[in-house]
Amino acid sequence: MIERAKVAVVGVGNNISALVQGIAFYRASGSLVGIYRPVVDGLGVGDIDFVAAFATADSKVGKDLTEAIFVAPNNFPRIGTELPPSGVRVERGLTDATGVDRVAKALAGAEVMLYAAPSGRPEVARAYAEAALRAGVAFINTTSDVVARDPQWMELFEAAGLPLLGDDLTSQFGTSIVHHTLLRLLEERGLTLVSSYQVNLGGTEDFRNLAQNGSGKKQSKLNALTSHQSTVDKVQMAPLGYLSQLQSEKVAYLNIEAQGWGETSVSLDVKLKAHDPSGGAGVTIDLIRMAVSAFRNGRGGYAAEAATLLKSPPGTAR
Amino acid sequence: MIERAKVAVVGVGNNISALVQGIAFYRASGSLVGIYRPVVDGLGVGDIDFVAAFATADSKVGKDLTEAIFVAPNNFPRIGTELPPSGVRVERGLTDATGVDRVAKALAGAEVMLYAAPSGRPEVARAYAEAALRAGVAFINTTSDVVARDPQWMELFEAAGLPLLGDDLTSQFGTSIVHHTLLRLLEERGLTLVSSYQVNLGGTEDFRNLAQNGSGKKQSKLNALTSHQSTVDKVQMAPLGYLSQLQSEKVAYLNIEAQGWGETSVSLDVKLKAHDPSGGAGVTIDLIRMAVSAFRNGRGGYAAEAATLLKSPPGTAR
Amino acid sequence: MIERAKVAVVGVGNNISALVQGIAFYRASGSLVGIYRPVVDGLGVGDIDFVAAFATADSKVGKDLTEAIFVAPNNFPRIGTELPPSGVRVERGLTDATGVDRVAKALAGAEVMLYAAPSGRPEVARAYAEAALRAGVAFINTTSDVVARDPQWMELFEAAGLPLLGDDLTSQFGTSIVHHTLLRLLEERGLTLVSSYQVNLGGTEDFRNLAQNGSGKKQSKLNALTSHQSTVDKVQMAPLGYLSQLQSEKVAYLNIEAQGWGETSVSLDVKLKAHDPSGGAGVTIDLIRMAVSAFRNGRGGYAAEAATLLKSPPGTAR
Amino acid sequence: MIERAKVAVVGVGNNISALVQGIAFYRASGSLVGIYRPVVDGLGVGDIDFVAAFATADSKVGKDLTEAIFVAPNNFPRIGTELPPSGVRVERGLTDATGVDRVAKALAGAEVMLYAAPSGRPEVARAYAEAALRAGVAFINTTSDVVARDPQWMELFEAAGLPLLGDDLTSQFGTSIVHHTLLRLLEERGLTLVSSYQVNLGGTEDFRNLAQNGSGKKQSKLNALTSHQSTVDKVQMAPLGYLSQLQSEKVAYLNIEAQGWGETSVSLDVKLKAHDPSGGAGVTIDLIRMAVSAFRNGRGGYAAEAATLLKSPPGTAR
Repeated sequence: MIERAKVAVVGVGNNISALVQGIAFYRASGSLVGIYRPVVDGLGVGDIDFVAAFATADSKVGKDLTEAIFVAPNNFPRIGTELPPSGVRVERGLTDATGVDRVAKALAGAEVMLYAAPSGRPEVARAYAEAALRAGVAFINTTSDVVARDPQWMELFEAAGLPLLGDDLTSQFGTSIVHHTLLRLLEERGLTLVSSYQVNLGGTEDFRNLAQNGSGKKQSKLNALTSHQSTVDKVQMAPLGYLSQLQSEKVAYLNIEAQGWGETSVSLDVKLKAHDPSGGAGVTIDLIRMAVSAFRNGRGGYAAEAATLLKSPPGTAR
Repeated sequence: MIERAKVAVVGVGNNISALVQGIAFYRASGSLVGIYRPVVDGLGVGDIDFVAAFATADSKVGKDLTEAIFVAPNNFPRIGTELPPSGVRVERGLTDATGVDRVAKALAGAEVMLYAAPSGRPEVARAYAEAALRAGVAFINTTSDVVARDPQWMELFEAAGLPLLGDDLTSQFGTSIVHHTLLRLLEERGLTLVSSYQVNLGGTEDFRNLAQNGSGKKQSKLNALTSHQSTVDKVQMAPLGYLSQLQSEKVAYLNIEAQGWGETSVSLDVKLKAHDPSGGAGVTIDLIRMAVSAFRNGRGGYAAEAATLLKSPPGTAR
Repeated sequence: MIERAKVAVVGVGNNISALVQGIAFYRASGSLVGIYRPVVDGLGVGDIDFVAAFATADSKVGKDLTEAIFVAPNNFPRIGTELPPSGVRVERGLTDATGVDRVAKALAGAEVMLYAAPSGRPEVARAYAEAALRAGVAFINTTSDVVARDPQWMELFEAAGLPLLGDDLTSQFGTSIVHHTLLRLLEERGLTLVSSYQVNLGGTEDFRNLAQNGSGKKQSKLNALTSHQSTVDKVQMAPLGYLSQLQSEKVAYLNIEAQGWGETSVSLDVKLKAHDPSGGAGVTIDLIRMAVSAFRNGRGGYAAEAATLLKSPPGTAR
Repeated sequence: MIERAKVAVVGVGNNISALVQGIAFYRASGSLVGIYRPVVDGLGVGDIDFVAAFATADSKVGKDLTEAIFVAPNNFPRIGTELPPSGVRVERGLTDATGVDRVAKALAGAEVMLYAAPSGRPEVARAYAEAALRAGVAFINTTSDVVARDPQWMELFEAAGLPLLGDDLTSQFGTSIVHHTLLRLLEERGLTLVSSYQVNLGGTEDFRNLAQNGSGKKQSKLNALTSHQSTVDKVQMAPLGYLSQLQSEKVAYLNIEAQGWGETSVSLDVKLKAHDPSGGAGVTIDLIRMAVSAFRNGRGGYAAEAATLLKSPPGTAR
């Protein structure tokens, strides 16, 4: 029987709540519902143990990981599993480059560090990456901060024989992929796009942050749609709407207006509703297993099989 | 410059209205909007001439083809093009096997016969196929009646060196392909389908006929969705709804309920609105050009390049 | 403290499941959520006791009422309340006029008989009404069978000093009222209706029956929309769609196309989703309390305050 | 036959385009489609003549009113009417309190001044009101700037025997009224609101301005919904989304989640699409006729019959 992966997490937000609860749920139930890859290099979705956790909020530090994931502003629901205490106490996380050694020591026994703090603090992200290097563990960056797509950092991990996977998570099933798929279908069938828009509403803390300074995200979302510039030019994004009532759910409205034979009109309206953190956890579970597998096989640096799970893999413009 | 294709049509319903008007529109405007394949073997979408037309309704027989296409119950709208008279007078069509010779004579000068009468009269379909054979022209069957998927008829056309394309048209952009595409996307991303349904509403005469005896169509629509039986079992079809107010438009509602990571729910609701006859004409225009090209090159029998345009190509169970 | 109402039920379908569970839920929780009238003549929603129950299915007869409500084809969900046994054993119901005396005897101690069997068996409905008369209890007819709107039956109940409320239940919140309200709003604001349609999908046994012979229902639904014939003429109903996957939920799609100032277009699309049996139980709870109050006050015959809860009150054409 | 109303307009934006085109359309066609009140005190919707017009954009000044209404950023479509030149040349409008006398002189022959410039310049609004007073004509304020709800201004108009109608237009059929109507229906039927949101998207210049500084508007929209504070607390507004592709159309998405009997869920999803300027013009046409009627009858000050057409009538908090 395979040895479970040993993971340290940074950030104890909704995505980690979904991840921790989901792993416990699948381990207890044996269910395979909603799973992308049941097994990755011998590791099932239940074959993950958490060995350390870091967070900056006073309300989370000191609690068991399985308690801390339910502390506000986290609002991902309990998915109904009995959740036995993890035995992992949340430690105080870094707010700058100070304390790298302390973190490195705390990584004893870990195989991979999962960096899942809020985006927007690149120096903190790199302090954790530095700690991972010193401790000799793999590093996964699920945020949009630049780490894996910085060639200098990639060289350091390659030289150390340690995996470095990032940056920025795609969602298992989100607005971008549905919109992209429908626009591509139109093109394949010879219809001509007239106009299209996308409205995104959400209720998580992550979503609130994005809604407040969302212009970069907006362009990144447009980029995600398609490579045909003629299509992108016709797609418009409404401003992100933070609605606390949605809790951890995300709602998207898509509209597509096109023309078919004889320039007659074709229209498509879509409403998509999903739990945002589930979409992240469903992809993170694969990155963890890929990183651990590479770590155990001594493959340092980037792992190409992670490419479809990342928005900004190495080689992407910053 | 390439010689225009010479086409005889059987049935002067909405699809032929969309086809005739669309050809005139594209020829006059030079537009490429909404076109699947701008050129097929050198033939543009405007490179089609109608040389004969057959219909059974007294209200259509004797009229110029460009007038007959606007006679009720046809309700496909005028798409705004000046429509010069075709010079083709609609002749009385067959209602049984009597009159094959008369039709064959009327095909002098035609290269292909486009059979686009209402589905459900196989003996009439075959009478026209017989006339095509006698006259030495290619035959396209856009109805669900069995012609091209009957090996005996295929042999006759092969032996005569005449193309035979059919049976039953797909739509350029319809409910089935959108539903299929979204269900496939779910599967690809590892989500688990819980349930899904499809509602189809339409206002054409064709739609009214299908709504009245629609059970076969229902199964055929389910078949079109996907090859995974586990998915098909979870998809249900509401009865077709004939609503005259929709005229030549079709409205479909799709609902998809699925589960992602941690068995959390994902739901998709889609409304699709399109002109049904345009979806047919946008595919028929390609079948015509494929048939004419094969005819001119002496390629008898089936043309494999037509496969994606047909619901029941040769080899399909009847 | 008021004495609880004593109710005998005929039919143990989804609506009775919703009613029985809801009463227990509100009694235990003290919640007022989703309640139309918290108190009717001193009776709260929890002030109802069931004292007898009749059903024809072998699978229900002999079971405690609180068990029988979960027997298939019933599919209204458990709403999460601990449900203590009622002590009422389901007795074999009538299938024709035989057995009226047996039923009348079983009504000892009841104040009102709630007739909630499937619609379509008027002679059975009247056999139960006869039993109610003999036993001296009030009668409520929630089905579309003619009882209360038959002047002869009304006279019999009046003469006996017993309340008779019926026929046919409205829903607390259904498609008709939403559609009607939006059409009326259009009129009030001076917009001109162009066209409108309604699609109804459901998964209950009741819905399956209606879908199979639904033409009468269709007209009744149109009648429910509005009294302006000019509006009704522009509204079309798609055939009812039975989809087992919906279980006890009902989904409706409404579309309204109108014109405002300058004949510019206005369109409204609505999706409504609700538990059908809840809509019935939320109204039944008021009919019961009105009937019991009238019974206790010796007011026989019809009770005018029930009018808005009934589709076909006395005076309606049959 | 009644004498036509003589109107001077300030601002030549989309709403005035809809108004001018609509009047010409109804006069030519005799249509009554989409009209709120066919006749107000003897005046039909076609009984309006424009006698002066003011605008600040160089691209509009000097043009005939019927040309100026099509100058960008106006994007309300041509509604298909032949539009004979009005003979009214657009004059340079005020940008501050300078030039009141010039404007007053230009009002010779007018009965009412319609102030329909962009909101947000109260000193300009009052300069025009001053000009109306000097010229002895009625004043209508369709903007949200404070004029009619300032008691001092109201006194001045009353003293002069001149009508003063305002402030701020409701829409003939907009998001607020649909949302309000559905929330009220829920309440009437005893359902309990859980949560609700509203998303508004538009493509006019007005909409772009609102989207850029929309916080006040957001609250005003919430106020418009209902007077029940418990309901308002559960309704959230997404930020206004300016999407140029929508041109003069507005799209709104509403979601309502509620609970019925037994706390079972009820959900409503609505998409509303309408031409924003038509909604304004359809109400303005009534304000004009009310103002002219009061003017001719010597009724100065406010006219109570205008109350339902205004968002902030006299007495509203500023």
